[in-house]
Amino acid sequence: MNAADPPFVSHLQSLLPAACFRAPTPGYFEEPRGRFHGVPAPVLAPATTEEVAALIRACNSARVGVVPYGGGTGLVGGQIQPDGPAPVVLSLERMRAIRRPADPRENVLVVEAGMILADVQAEAERVGRLFPLSLASEGSTRIGGNLSTNAGGLNVLRYGNARDLCLGIEAVLPDGTVFNGLTRLRKDNTGYDLRNLLIGAEGTLGIITAAALKLFLQPANRMTALFVVDSPAAALDLLALARDVAGEAISAFELIGRTGFDFLTEHFPDLRQPFARPPQWAVLTELGLSGGGDAQAALEALFEQAAEAGLVSDGVVAHSQAQSAALWALRETIPAANKRIGSIASHDISLPLSAIPDFIETCSTALAALAPFRINCFGHLGDGNLHYNLFPPQGQSRDAYDNIRKQATKIVHDHVHAMAGSFSAEHGVGRMKTGDLETYGDPGKLFAMRAIKAALDPNGIMNPGAMLAQGH
Amino acid sequence: MNAADPPFVSHLQSLLPAACFRAPTPGYFEEPRGRFHGVPAPVLAPATTEEVAALIRACNSARVGVVPYGGGTGLVGGQIQPDGPAPVVLSLERMRAIRRPADPRENVLVVEAGMILADVQAEAERVGRLFPLSLASEGSTRIGGNLSTNAGGLNVLRYGNARDLCLGIEAVLPDGTVFNGLTRLRKDNTGYDLRNLLIGAEGTLGIITAAALKLFLQPANRMTALFVVDSPAAALDLLALARDVAGEAISAFELIGRTGFDFLTEHFPDLRQPFARPPQWAVLTELGLSGGGDAQAALEALFEQAAEAGLVSDGVVAHSQAQSAALWALRETIPAANKRIGSIASHDISLPLSAIPDFIETCSTALAALAPFRINCFGHLGDGNLHYNLFPPQGQSRDAYDNIRKQATKIVHDHVHAMAGSFSAEHGVGRMKTGDLETYGDPGKLFAMRAIKAALDPNGIMNPGAMLAQGH
Repeated sequence: MNAADPPFVSHLQSLLPAACFRAPTPGYFEEPRGRFHGVPAPVLAPATTEEVAALIRACNSARVGVVPYGGGTGLVGGQIQPDGPAPVVLSLERMRAIRRPADPRENVLVVEAGMILADVQAEAERVGRLFPLSLASEGSTRIGGNLSTNAGGLNVLRYGNARDLCLGIEAVLPDGTVFNGLTRLRKDNTGYDLRNLLIGAEGTLGIITAAALKLFLQPANRMTALFVVDSPAAALDLLALARDVAGEAISAFELIGRTGFDFLTEHFPDLRQPFARPPQWAVLTELGLSGGGDAQAALEALFEQAAEAGLVSDGVVAHSQAQSAALWALRETIPAANKRIGSIASHDISLPLSAIPDFIETCSTALAALAPFRINCFGHLGDGNLHYNLFPPQGQSRDAYDNIRKQATKIVHDHVHAMAGSFSAEHGVGRMKTGDLETYGDPGKLFAMRAIKAALDPNGIMNPGAMLAQGH
Repeated sequence: MNAADPPFVSHLQSLLPAACFRAPTPGYFEEPRGRFHGVPAPVLAPATTEEVAALIRACNSARVGVVPYGGGTGLVGGQIQPDGPAPVVLSLERMRAIRRPADPRENVLVVEAGMILADVQAEAERVGRLFPLSLASEGSTRIGGNLSTNAGGLNVLRYGNARDLCLGIEAVLPDGTVFNGLTRLRKDNTGYDLRNLLIGAEGTLGIITAAALKLFLQPANRMTALFVVDSPAAALDLLALARDVAGEAISAFELIGRTGFDFLTEHFPDLRQPFARPPQWAVLTELGLSGGGDAQAALEALFEQAAEAGLVSDGVVAHSQAQSAALWALRETIPAANKRIGSIASHDISLPLSAIPDFIETCSTALAALAPFRINCFGHLGDGNLHYNLFPPQGQSRDAYDNIRKQATKIVHDHVHAMAGSFSAEHGVGRMKTGDLETYGDPGKLFAMRAIKAALDPNGIMNPGAMLAQGH
């Protein structure tokens, strides 16, 4: 691989308009948790698919790496190349046009990859529709990055991951070929599924430049409740009961543990907590009913039945959208509380639903044998996806735990793997978890991934070092 | 490529148990419409994934083709190799075990690829769940074939294609490597999406041997209605109104045209039709409500609102499951009526919803200039998927139209392509439509498909001639 050195940048200047060349400000070389710092590199922001293709063709000819950059919000270093020859950082920030306005009849919206997620949501809402992808970073994250990482978030239980929300994509392949797959069709069985191959490939097989997105009906009637349960097993029983009562209208089912409530008390004392004593476990659930349904009444019926069945010992059903927002604030403030405390290690894991109670029990026991961690286990229980983050005891610094961080993560990921789970449920592999993919990935899968990577990107220019460790 | 000749079969006999070798009965070399006839070939039915892998390894070493065979119900010749060196026909019929019984908590069922679709549905029903894939051929089609062709069917509007119903797969790749991707996880962002690459690849990238399938709640309350509309445009307006009234509970929205009703009158006179005069256009719709909803009441409310809005001029809402079944019988008997009459050409097309009225109008005009076809245009309107079949005028034989069949199909597919549609919505490419894929497929897509095929199957042994025309 060659560096994007001044002569190469001069060559690019002969190919592309001056507006494509951006000041390489620090933001392009940092990521939210400060774990990766990029090598200095030129930053280019093409305005059209043709300009992206010209840039990629030039990089491929010169064997210069390309690091795609969306909103910069990824949590596994997929957007940051920390070492090696300087790549070109390819930012999608100037490609944010609406190619085809939100259409409430077709329930489709076609946008360019650089559109901010919140703007995508707003365009759907403009015509009374919902684009359900929703993340903490939605005000800055870009849809192309969401697709390239197959982002998850808060509404996966009902609507699926980013992959499930996309009908078609346009992409530039590693040799500069444009893949025109921007279909608005719901059914199209004419060849290999390149769309899903590029979605979640983290920019290692090409650059997604535009996408046709699925829109959904706005649930007319939404309401939220917070229920206290004895255990994760009881939470899963509650989920089953909730499905009996409310069918597929459950749009969120989030676990919050005692540690999470304690963190909020410590660092956000003004945030009103609904229970006198922080519960051991609680579940935040939201129903979104269409037609004439009454979500609050359904949640109250669920509360009654769950209490009768001994699944729920306390709870609160919101009676207004303001109360609903206050309950959500508890869940959504947990990451900020985590950040203030400073985690030793964080894990974005998924498990088969039935394995979750056993995992929570046995993994915490194994970790306790290593050190007196505080474990904040919370997240998208309905999807089997937990954020399982380790913190030092109150009053201690995380730095003291530097030497056992890797060991702790190995314990967590070994337990997850033994229970048929995943070491990365929604954040992806990036550069942080390439080792985990080598360790836990199926050999047949790795073999096929390498063959596909070599076939589509023989020079290895696309996001070098992400997803697949280099040197293989 | 080499033929699966007697010495090679002897070699296989040294590798595999005798039970794997099946009598090559005619069924393995025929398909439902009689358009393809297979070259004589040995038929093998391995009982385990290891036996499949051993067979594939042997074929790959000897450069002998492998034609995967599920239920034999495909409509585009994907399961039949009509010429060339004799391949091995690899039937999945002995791999029909349940790997993991239907689990109503996880809503997952893990089965082997040879399980009959109706048996998969029954296993889900055993625990009060729904496996929504539903096709006319469900009594004989096998789930591995359904996945390999990304089958569609009657419930796509609500639940998606086969692809959307699968969490994970196990597959044998073209070199005999086993891909262990049989995950039960809802979220797993650890690498390229091989599952979706193999789903819909029609056996050209490997053999799906098992699958983890998603289960759904049984809609507690289902009911059906048949509405008379003036035009396809009015049918789309009705769909939009139905979504306002019933949200995402619409599980079917099927178009039936005058020709379809006439064909039923001609060939199934005992089938009771609900309207005194066959309508120009009608829509069969089904609602499936969970929780306490009343589907019949919702359909009656829809009828009233649609009549007020001038969208619907007549209609019937079923009042019992027997009446519901009688309405469905109309829709489901149309293919049998088509078969009795004998189509000149049939097309399985999809279009963006908003393009459908224009397509129906302009394509019929263009065809009328060629010959006095009777056009039976019917199918999954809610998905934008029409079965668009051409028949001779009453009393004429289709043989008289042999010489213009290709021309007629070109007119249809050209119109579809010009309107951003697909020449194969749900049946796939097989061997029948490889020319269409060359003609209408995006060059970038074809380029990437060939690169992936060459990377995973360098000897070209997997289902030779299917999907990608040979000689490229």
